Amino acid sequence: MTAALSDKLKALLDTPVFVIVATVQPDGSPQLSPVWVKRDGDDVIFSTTLGRQKEKNLRRDPRVTVLLQPFDAPYTYAEIRGTVTMSTEGGQELIDELALKYTGQKYAEFNPRSAEDNPRVVVRVTPRKVVGRL
Amino acid sequence: MTAALSDKLKALLDTPVFVIVATVQPDGSPQLSPVWVKRDGDDVIFSTTLGRQKEKNLRRDPRVTVLLQPFDAPYTYAEIRGTVTMSTEGGQELIDELALKYTGQKYAEFNPRSAEDNPRVVVRVTPRKVVGRL
Repeated sequence: MTAALSDKLKALLDTPVFVIVATVQPDGSPQLSPVWVKRDGDDVIFSTTLGRQKEKNLRRDPRVTVLLQPFDAPYTYAEIRGTVTMSTEGGQELIDELALKYTGQKYAEFNPRSAEDNPRVVVRVTPRKVVGRL
Repeated sequence: MTAALSDKLKALLDTPVFVIVATVQPDGSPQLSPVWVKRDGDDVIFSTTLGRQKEKNLRRDPRVTVLLQPFDAPYTYAEIRGTVTMSTEGGQELIDELALKYTGQKYAEFNPRSAEDNPRVVVRVTPRKVVGRL
C-alpha cells in the first residue's frame, strides 16, 4: 500500500529543503541524519554511499521515516513513513543533480574530499503513510 | 554508560533550537517529530503528553535519538542517542518554560487549544552516544 503526498508537500520537496532520514540500527534503535532530497512522483529520493551506516541499515531493514520541517515554518512539518529500494545505478548523476539543486555546484566542487568516497547509492523512498501538517 | 555533550552542543541547546526526536514504533520502524528542548547538564529535556504516540513508544522502549541541525548552519549537526526517563511531575512548569524560551509566551497563550490536552510529561534524555559535527 502506498500513500500520496499533498501538493504542498510535493512543492516543498522540489525546493532545496533539508529532510531528516531515520533508519533502524542493528540493535533496533533509530539512526538519524539530514540529507538533500528530490522527488519523483510520490517517491522521495536521496543519496548515500555504499557502506555508510544508513546504507547498511537500509540494506538490512528497508523501512525508513523521513521528516520535513521547513526552516521558515517550523510548526508545519510532515513525516513520511516508507520503504526503500536502492541501486548504485545513476548514483553519481544523482549526487551531482542534488549538489546543483542545493549549492549551485557539482558535488566534487562542493565537497572535494568526496573523490575518496565509496560508490554513491540512489535511495528511493516509496511512501506508505504520511502524517503531520503539510 | 553516558556520553558528554560538547560545549558547542550545550550552547546550541540553550538557544531556541528545534530538535527532531525519534522513537521506536510498535512495529520497530522509526517515528519522528520536532520538539522544543532545554538542557540540564548533559541531559536533554523535552515535553510531551500522556498517550501521544512518542510517549507510548518511549514507555515501551526508552531508547531515543535526537537530531540537532541548526537552521543557520545545516551542514553541522549532532545526533544524540540516549535513554529516557519520564514523569508527569513538573510537566506544566516545563511546557511553560519551553514556550517562554521559544515564543516569549506562556504555553496556553501560544496554543489556546492546549487546555484540552492530556497531562504533560517531562521526558529526560540521558545521552549514551553523541555523533556528528557539533
